[in-house]
Amino acid sequence: MMSSALDLSHIIPPQELIRLAREWLAEDTPNFDPAGVCVGSQEVRATLLCKSPGSVLAGCPFFTAVFTELGCTVDWVYNEGQKLGMELVTQAAVVRGPARCVLLGERPALNCLARTCGIATLCRQLLHTAQTERWEGQLAGTRKTTPGFRLAEKYAMLVGGISMHRYDLSGMVMLKDNHVWASGSITQAVRDARSVCGFSSKIEVECRNDEEAIEAARAGADIIMLDNYTPQVTLLIS
Amino acid sequence: MMSSALDLSHIIPPQELIRLAREWLAEDTPNFDPAGVCVGSQEVRATLLCKSPGSVLAGCPFFTAVFTELGCTVDWVYNEGQKLGMELVTQAAVVRGPARCVLLGERPALNCLARTCGIATLCRQLLHTAQTERWEGQLAGTRKTTPGFRLAEKYAMLVGGISMHRYDLSGMVMLKDNHVWASGSITQAVRDARSVCGFSSKIEVECRNDEEAIEAARAGADIIMLDNYTPQVTLLIS
Amino acid sequence: MMSSALDLSHIIPPQELIRLAREWLAEDTPNFDPAGVCVGSQEVRATLLCKSPGSVLAGCPFFTAVFTELGCTVDWVYNEGQKLGMELVTQAAVVRGPARCVLLGERPALNCLARTCGIATLCRQLLHTAQTERWEGQLAGTRKTTPGFRLAEKYAMLVGGISMHRYDLSGMVMLKDNHVWASGSITQAVRDARSVCGFSSKIEVECRNDEEAIEAARAGADIIMLDNYTPQVTLLIS
Amino acid sequence: MMSSALDLSHIIPPQELIRLAREWLAEDTPNFDPAGVCVGSQEVRATLLCKSPGSVLAGCPFFTAVFTELGCTVDWVYNEGQKLGMELVTQAAVVRGPARCVLLGERPALNCLARTCGIATLCRQLLHTAQTERWEGQLAGTRKTTPGFRLAEKYAMLVGGISMHRYDLSGMVMLKDNHVWASGSITQAVRDARSVCGFSSKIEVECRNDEEAIEAARAGADIIMLDNYTPQVTLLIS
Amino acid sequence: MMSSALDLSHIIPPQELIRLAREWLAEDTPNFDPAGVCVGSQEVRATLLCKSPGSVLAGCPFFTAVFTELGCTVDWVYNEGQKLGMELVTQAAVVRGPARCVLLGERPALNCLARTCGIATLCRQLLHTAQTERWEGQLAGTRKTTPGFRLAEKYAMLVGGISMHRYDLSGMVMLKDNHVWASGSITQAVRDARSVCGFSSKIEVECRNDEEAIEAARAGADIIMLDNYTPQVTLLIS
Amino acid sequence: MMSSALDLSHIIPPQELIRLAREWLAEDTPNFDPAGVCVGSQEVRATLLCKSPGSVLAGCPFFTAVFTELGCTVDWVYNEGQKLGMELVTQAAVVRGPARCVLLGERPALNCLARTCGIATLCRQLLHTAQTERWEGQLAGTRKTTPGFRLAEKYAMLVGGISMHRYDLSGMVMLKDNHVWASGSITQAVRDARSVCGFSSKIEVECRNDEEAIEAARAGADIIMLDNYTPQVTLLIS
Repeated sequence: MMSSALDLSHIIPPQELIRLAREWLAEDTPNFDPAGVCVGSQEVRATLLCKSPGSVLAGCPFFTAVFTELGCTVDWVYNEGQKLGMELVTQAAVVRGPARCVLLGERPALNCLARTCGIATLCRQLLHTAQTERWEGQLAGTRKTTPGFRLAEKYAMLVGGISMHRYDLSGMVMLKDNHVWASGSITQAVRDARSVCGFSSKIEVECRNDEEAIEAARAGADIIMLDNYTPQVTLLIS
Repeated sequence: MMSSALDLSHIIPPQELIRLAREWLAEDTPNFDPAGVCVGSQEVRATLLCKSPGSVLAGCPFFTAVFTELGCTVDWVYNEGQKLGMELVTQAAVVRGPARCVLLGERPALNCLARTCGIATLCRQLLHTAQTERWEGQLAGTRKTTPGFRLAEKYAMLVGGISMHRYDLSGMVMLKDNHVWASGSITQAVRDARSVCGFSSKIEVECRNDEEAIEAARAGADIIMLDNYTPQVTLLIS
Repeated sequence: MMSSALDLSHIIPPQELIRLAREWLAEDTPNFDPAGVCVGSQEVRATLLCKSPGSVLAGCPFFTAVFTELGCTVDWVYNEGQKLGMELVTQAAVVRGPARCVLLGERPALNCLARTCGIATLCRQLLHTAQTERWEGQLAGTRKTTPGFRLAEKYAMLVGGISMHRYDLSGMVMLKDNHVWASGSITQAVRDARSVCGFSSKIEVECRNDEEAIEAARAGADIIMLDNYTPQVTLLIS
Repeated sequence: MMSSALDLSHIIPPQELIRLAREWLAEDTPNFDPAGVCVGSQEVRATLLCKSPGSVLAGCPFFTAVFTELGCTVDWVYNEGQKLGMELVTQAAVVRGPARCVLLGERPALNCLARTCGIATLCRQLLHTAQTERWEGQLAGTRKTTPGFRLAEKYAMLVGGISMHRYDLSGMVMLKDNHVWASGSITQAVRDARSVCGFSSKIEVECRNDEEAIEAARAGADIIMLDNYTPQVTLLIS
Repeated sequence: MMSSALDLSHIIPPQELIRLAREWLAEDTPNFDPAGVCVGSQEVRATLLCKSPGSVLAGCPFFTAVFTELGCTVDWVYNEGQKLGMELVTQAAVVRGPARCVLLGERPALNCLARTCGIATLCRQLLHTAQTERWEGQLAGTRKTTPGFRLAEKYAMLVGGISMHRYDLSGMVMLKDNHVWASGSITQAVRDARSVCGFSSKIEVECRNDEEAIEAARAGADIIMLDNYTPQVTLLIS
Repeated sequence: MMSSALDLSHIIPPQELIRLAREWLAEDTPNFDPAGVCVGSQEVRATLLCKSPGSVLAGCPFFTAVFTELGCTVDWVYNEGQKLGMELVTQAAVVRGPARCVLLGERPALNCLARTCGIATLCRQLLHTAQTERWEGQLAGTRKTTPGFRLAEKYAMLVGGISMHRYDLSGMVMLKDNHVWASGSITQAVRDARSVCGFSSKIEVECRNDEEAIEAARAGADIIMLDNYTPQVTLLIS
């Protein structure tokens, strides 16, 4: 689904990468790094070894950002989104910089990369299964992400080929039973939401049966989510 | 267009109001408030007087948030979105709290309210003109807002009855000539954007003629913006 | 009044420019920039076109700071404070950098520049009027600025040749009726304020008549503001 | 291992809970919450239903902090660290507050709780396995946590009964092959590290064989980590 | 010099106290407080004992702010600025709150109070010496404060009766040899500075001899600092 | 005690230096630097002169960081930790950069350096005294540091050769009378603390007599602090 020529890292604004890298580094070294005195700041060369054959590489911009913040450089052997080889160990990148800085960045950078690669790999597998089964719907993510780490997780999902769905509450409006109950009806809830989000946001309505779905569609909903339907009748009308 | 029963202040998350209030207060008093020693902290009562007859009241949540942050309370005489009377001076609210805190909040709170009321009033007038002229399109805002103050400006526009359009670059995707040129064609640009934003965001394409509009629509664009058209042929297809 | 040789941008501390640029960029792209995937990161050249003939250029340091933060460079054709030509369109600067970064910075940079140029142009006109009318007083600004955007607005005013007046509550002390009432008398209010701000800050007192002005001056006020006087008798004694 | 009377939530400083809650809420609602206009601010009552029978409840302080920040209250039916019942659905808490605020907090609060409960449950199982196998060593965590979410993950691990090991690079010093190689010898590395961390921090040395372990112990290491040993000879000498 | 009725704490903006208290608490407990589990959250009563007879109490607002942030309350036995008794130990305040919170705040609160009391006490002594010697000039502070702690130190100085002098570079302009050398002359430097700071800020010029002082005064300097003069001729003309 | 070859600056993480430098600069120039217009941005060369013969140089990384943030460079003549000569004035470093930037950084950089050199010099003297008196214990610091400035103060202490003791409440656990009283006994307090901090942190117990010390040791305390003992019997068992 993803054009192979697209460089997904282009959707992450540079200043956000810097902000995250600093926050992660500060979490791992709030004040001193006593061991830094042992290794000093001589220039060293470290290798990123991936030990899960067949994984999808994802999260390179975050990994690089952590080391850039520390005055180190990263050269990638594989590209973002590429499937790593089936060898037991694959060399994916080389990091160069002052020894203590390479060690300062090692854990935060790996902590991110291990998760983003894992997510992308799993998404790619799910996508493969869906395609094999000739399922024509879309696979999409949720807002059920790790607090504070959503940008990396949503990004990894995209690298894995899964649709992002809405990023946060400020994006697409999704109306559930609570909204409908409070507004009085699906029609009123859609109308109220539309008066705020205007024509530039989509409105999705969670429906429990055909009657609700028809009411939502007539009220101007952009997407109907048929919740709790058995598989053979589930539809996703976008 | 706006249901009169809707309380628009419900779209502003509480923690964002607190964050803005603190930032604005810190901008106006970065360290000491020497005059505070003159007025002390006796409880006082201040009145918000509006001197622009016929204005639309907008921005109450921000005004209140500034004073709440300082331990003061605000009682509103008029409601958010209500048109003030035609008297030369209208009493719109009463602020109560320690004298020095009322004075600390006065300027930041008024600086916001004066702008949000002005925006809402102007929007209401534009809306009235459009309705009088039986124009059936929508009036919508842009991203051309004051840096750092977008939330208040977009909110005031909504209170004034104008459609928000997209809030920021992370919301609805809008493709302009640069994106089309870089992608190679409108069709490719829409396809690339869709692969990232998925089915939950709308894609708007700026088109210069009918051929482009038709290509964009066929490529799956949700909104066509017919740019540089003379008024009699301008269409907004959402 | 402003020596033509002075470079006003020298009063803005570098780290403050960086802070503002980051805040403005984050406001406009809180998470992803989906359209960035369409344009990629090839090096491009963009031109800043000004379409208000006779405007005063102001705010260049902010404009440049936004693009610097994104790894782009800006070359200015005109200088800060210079009056642009009377052509319909003037090329004021050239921005170079990765395509997606130029687009990320475009809106925040223009949102600032449009406002700072507007303020400086209006100030220059007011100054011209005052000089034409042989008015010998000073034109000065207030604290009635957009919340969060004061630094840019006050700076633009300076570029336009208008006096800054006090920047915030922590600067010069201004005593109004509330302070006088709470202290008991103008004399006591000035004395109290002086005991805190010391000899390094000026104290300005808002007076309604000659008696108050004389009392304030005797109490040691540095500036008397004659409020609500009719024009022919207004004096500003600094 | 954990005294049943201990309330582990007492180790989290209050201001850190507030900081995290605000950050998580801002991530999920960066600007507006359009759906908030549908539900309004009437007082509602929501129930936390846990659907994984036998799970260990962990992360209550974070869940509560998110809702407290929004002006809601949480009443817990179960206690932190308690094993939930074996029913398909267990009611674990009741949340009360303005409807829109309950919905604003729902996702960030659940996103945290689902992860912290999962971690605590898994740790409790590992602990049970170790005890069943009469293993007398300790189970301890690592720094391999999700970037930005370590506090919650380390805390959940503690609730699950697993030892925290060092929290970050500023805590206990751990010397690995890189440090030893750069210092010249295990003895020198321990000496260098001790000169910085003093007598109040422990120093752990990763050793590959008995000779190294003995050298480390003689050099004053507090903990020897026997890495890459086969299970039957692994020792953890604290 | 300080009117005994003035409450100097009124010059500190409330939101600044909160910001400082949070920063100081986070510095002392970046993640967990393991000992908190020992003491729990039962309500306790702690007493602030001052052991330097004759000290001036200063910094109460900061001390209180730290504990307020932790949900504790502080009752003061002595007033800000009051000279403590000559007993070996004076009970100055009582803190009440959850045991672990009292202990979390103890060190940051005392670290501030010890310094602010010390500064105020020393200032009061210097003031006493000056008065005894019938010196009619003013004692004033500098910008030579501890990085990050200036607000508390300048405040303590004020409580001690010493003049604040300028708070920071954004306040009063002070021109030294570097400025004069770069501008070409004292006259030009004063003119340049005045064009920026306007009539609301004072300009102080550091002069090395009478000629310079006269030039500065004629150029419009508000304050002449006669640097490196021998005591018998030192003048401070404000 | 400190190996002369060790470069202590290696324990400070780079991003922390940047964070502190920015915070200190913003404190000293919250908005404009009016005097900057006088000096401009021509390249200048400034010399750091130390006027306390025999001082220990400490805090270079902070001094450098302040100027680096402003686009200036610093060349050191002496090394961190080196004792300066006995001349009245020693040239310790040369700073190069735009004139206004050198002046912006001057005060924050010196404010830090003066304090860190002072601390290191005093620590070195204390150490010398202890060695001269053949005292075999250790000199160690406390948490009684200036709020917000602990990193620099603890670092200076290390440069001076004094042991750091625990950095904050999240480091080594120290149990005092309050903890013991709340837990019921020293044994219980140590057990509770151990259950949280695990085997990677040390636990220190403040004891008033031999019985308590023995109980603490038996309970597993790593360090016994014999408080209020008369000198001849004070022991520090680490």
